[in-house]
Amino acid sequence: MTDVRESVHHLAAHARAASRLGRRLSTTQKNDVLLTCARLIEERLPDLRKENALDLEAGRGHGLSSAMLDRLTLSDKTVRAMTEGLREVAALPDPVYEITHAWRRPNGLEIARMQVPLGVIAIIYESRPNVTIDAAALCFKAGNATILRGGSEAFYSNRALTQVFREACSLHSVEPDVVQSLETTDREAVGALLKLDSLIDVVIPRGGRSLIERVVEESRIPVIKHYDGICHVYVDRDADLDMADEIVFNAKVQRPGVCNAMETLLVHEAVADSFLPGALKRLAAAGVELRVDERTRRAAQGQGIELKPVTEEDWRTEYLELILSVAVVPDLEAAIDHIETYGSHHTDTIVTRSWEAARRFQMEVDSSTVLVNASTRFSDGQQFGLGAEIGISTDKLHARGPMGLTDLVCKKFVVSGNGQIRT
Amino acid sequence: MTDVRESVHHLAAHARAASRLGRRLSTTQKNDVLLTCARLIEERLPDLRKENALDLEAGRGHGLSSAMLDRLTLSDKTVRAMTEGLREVAALPDPVYEITHAWRRPNGLEIARMQVPLGVIAIIYESRPNVTIDAAALCFKAGNATILRGGSEAFYSNRALTQVFREACSLHSVEPDVVQSLETTDREAVGALLKLDSLIDVVIPRGGRSLIERVVEESRIPVIKHYDGICHVYVDRDADLDMADEIVFNAKVQRPGVCNAMETLLVHEAVADSFLPGALKRLAAAGVELRVDERTRRAAQGQGIELKPVTEEDWRTEYLELILSVAVVPDLEAAIDHIETYGSHHTDTIVTRSWEAARRFQMEVDSSTVLVNASTRFSDGQQFGLGAEIGISTDKLHARGPMGLTDLVCKKFVVSGNGQIRT
Repeated sequence: MTDVRESVHHLAAHARAASRLGRRLSTTQKNDVLLTCARLIEERLPDLRKENALDLEAGRGHGLSSAMLDRLTLSDKTVRAMTEGLREVAALPDPVYEITHAWRRPNGLEIARMQVPLGVIAIIYESRPNVTIDAAALCFKAGNATILRGGSEAFYSNRALTQVFREACSLHSVEPDVVQSLETTDREAVGALLKLDSLIDVVIPRGGRSLIERVVEESRIPVIKHYDGICHVYVDRDADLDMADEIVFNAKVQRPGVCNAMETLLVHEAVADSFLPGALKRLAAAGVELRVDERTRRAAQGQGIELKPVTEEDWRTEYLELILSVAVVPDLEAAIDHIETYGSHHTDTIVTRSWEAARRFQMEVDSSTVLVNASTRFSDGQQFGLGAEIGISTDKLHARGPMGLTDLVCKKFVVSGNGQIRT
Repeated sequence: MTDVRESVHHLAAHARAASRLGRRLSTTQKNDVLLTCARLIEERLPDLRKENALDLEAGRGHGLSSAMLDRLTLSDKTVRAMTEGLREVAALPDPVYEITHAWRRPNGLEIARMQVPLGVIAIIYESRPNVTIDAAALCFKAGNATILRGGSEAFYSNRALTQVFREACSLHSVEPDVVQSLETTDREAVGALLKLDSLIDVVIPRGGRSLIERVVEESRIPVIKHYDGICHVYVDRDADLDMADEIVFNAKVQRPGVCNAMETLLVHEAVADSFLPGALKRLAAAGVELRVDERTRRAAQGQGIELKPVTEEDWRTEYLELILSVAVVPDLEAAIDHIETYGSHHTDTIVTRSWEAARRFQMEVDSSTVLVNASTRFSDGQQFGLGAEIGISTDKLHARGPMGLTDLVCKKFVVSGNGQIRT
């Protein structure tokens, strides 16, 4: 074994041991740690900023873009989000040991499903140092041990934040190895980590497609993936067109850089001429670049709106900016076909007054979130009332869609008898 | 692309297309197909037996053991189990489109969790041809398309059984590609299949450890694993010793060749001398080979029971036959330690009258099924009242423990609004 493999194995073995202690922690102990961590972050801010400055300096040296440097910075806003996040997670109900369902068998056996921690969770993420605290807090509250592996560009910040979390643990006599970070920039370390399926229960990569793909390719451990959101709004022939206009505008413009923003608008041809000119004019006025099919162009012509031709590639693209592809479709079936063919099974909306159309869309669109008469932007753990989320899973197994605290546990069967044997 | 890769891709693309039709099937349609399939198996039995004879002949030619040939044979008992299985799955409630939980947000949005099919499921299994029907029936009832890949030694039997299922589909105007089998013995085919993560949603290997490990190693698709059961019974100091004797005997002897049979007995030292001589004598009389630690030998000496020394390797071994390893432990903590160190997190039992010991054992033993005062043999979908099972998952994600129909679906969020937008 090389040194890197050995030290990764050592760290994972510590995490496994800590996970046995983690599942015994009381809710009060866990909440105390989270609240203390928030306080320590506030108290240690000058020190944390010094470490952050080392990363920023190195980042400038490596020629990181200003957007990248921005994401790397522990700004007042980022710090407030972290400390509020910690307090919010402390306020969430503890999912561990909750019985979600119980029943009795004819032979008197009582069967119950009990939520228990997953065990050891590895989080592999890119540049934002606040993920260190957000992810550690959620995993910890769910009784897990966590191995954090942040981007090398946030090395000093991540190390310092992990240290604060561990100190908060120690102050409440909690084994600090429930949260550890892989403190090496050696890329081999991640590869070694991904082979340790006897010590790590799940890997959650948080970052771009290439990061996730690399993890999927190399991992022997189950991975929960958070891929792109190519989200659609379909304006049905029976839509309330004023409502459709509001939803379309909101889904595209309110925050275009996130995965639940709309990337493609589909409009039933029966309402194309009445709906599209006004809706596209409003989007164009907000700075949205419109990439449209031929039928859309005809519907919107003569309005002085700049329209570009859409390409096959556009339908498959998550823009994450003020660009929208638009198609007119002959019917609901074609809209569903388009979404199933080009979408990413993330979040899709129908605007309609038709009960039948709404029901078909809900059942046949195979996306993690399917909405009727509401903006795609609601596909979010907070908006759904789940509390803080670890991300929006594009997987189908275990967690699908906004993934909160109750997706960081699993369920075991707990059976109570009085001497039953099988005959 | 080689021919094999191309044909595997073609088949998976057909499965993906069929899965869109599969999720629209009504419960009645699905049940009709299952019942017709049972009838066809009965009617076509002579033909099926001819195909089975080809496999058996080839098997004898390849020198398969009599146990292997036995598993390969479509005996009356196997056939009855298949047809009864089909009728039983038809009688189970349809999990598709069930709303498991719904709530309302302050802004009026209604959020619901709806069960929907996973999509395309690949089942990779070894010699028993009845798995073809059992697995296809469960996956089909849950609205999925299934790709079956059986062992090459059951090639003709599997092909014929798949054909019967597809014919039952056609008779009820259901797209037969909801069930397909990979009809090649080329090993490259499985490798190609395991890369198709855009077409296949989950892989379930059913077979020995080496098969599962190969699938995990090669797959880009999520895998649900069914590994060994190294199951323990722990007889606590506060156990009812008569009850313990019955449970221990049942867990080891009633059906030793299955994954939920006990492999290791742990006994609290306070009851070792009173419990072990009688319990071990009874086990030995039933033909159980006893591999014991030094403290157990002392407790059982002078009883004329044959005892062998246990090795470190024994604690990690799933015997699947009439062999038992036995240890005396100083306390509950040591019993839990032993189970966590050597067990396979499958099924473990405590026998005790102590409320506190039972609770600690239930919470701290990290196994998919944890029992108090009942035989490990109850860890089973039928026994739990879940109906037919696809296996007993040793994974933590998605499905843990006995895995029935409701683990072959996933949950999406279905959101109903009246024009809500985010501000």
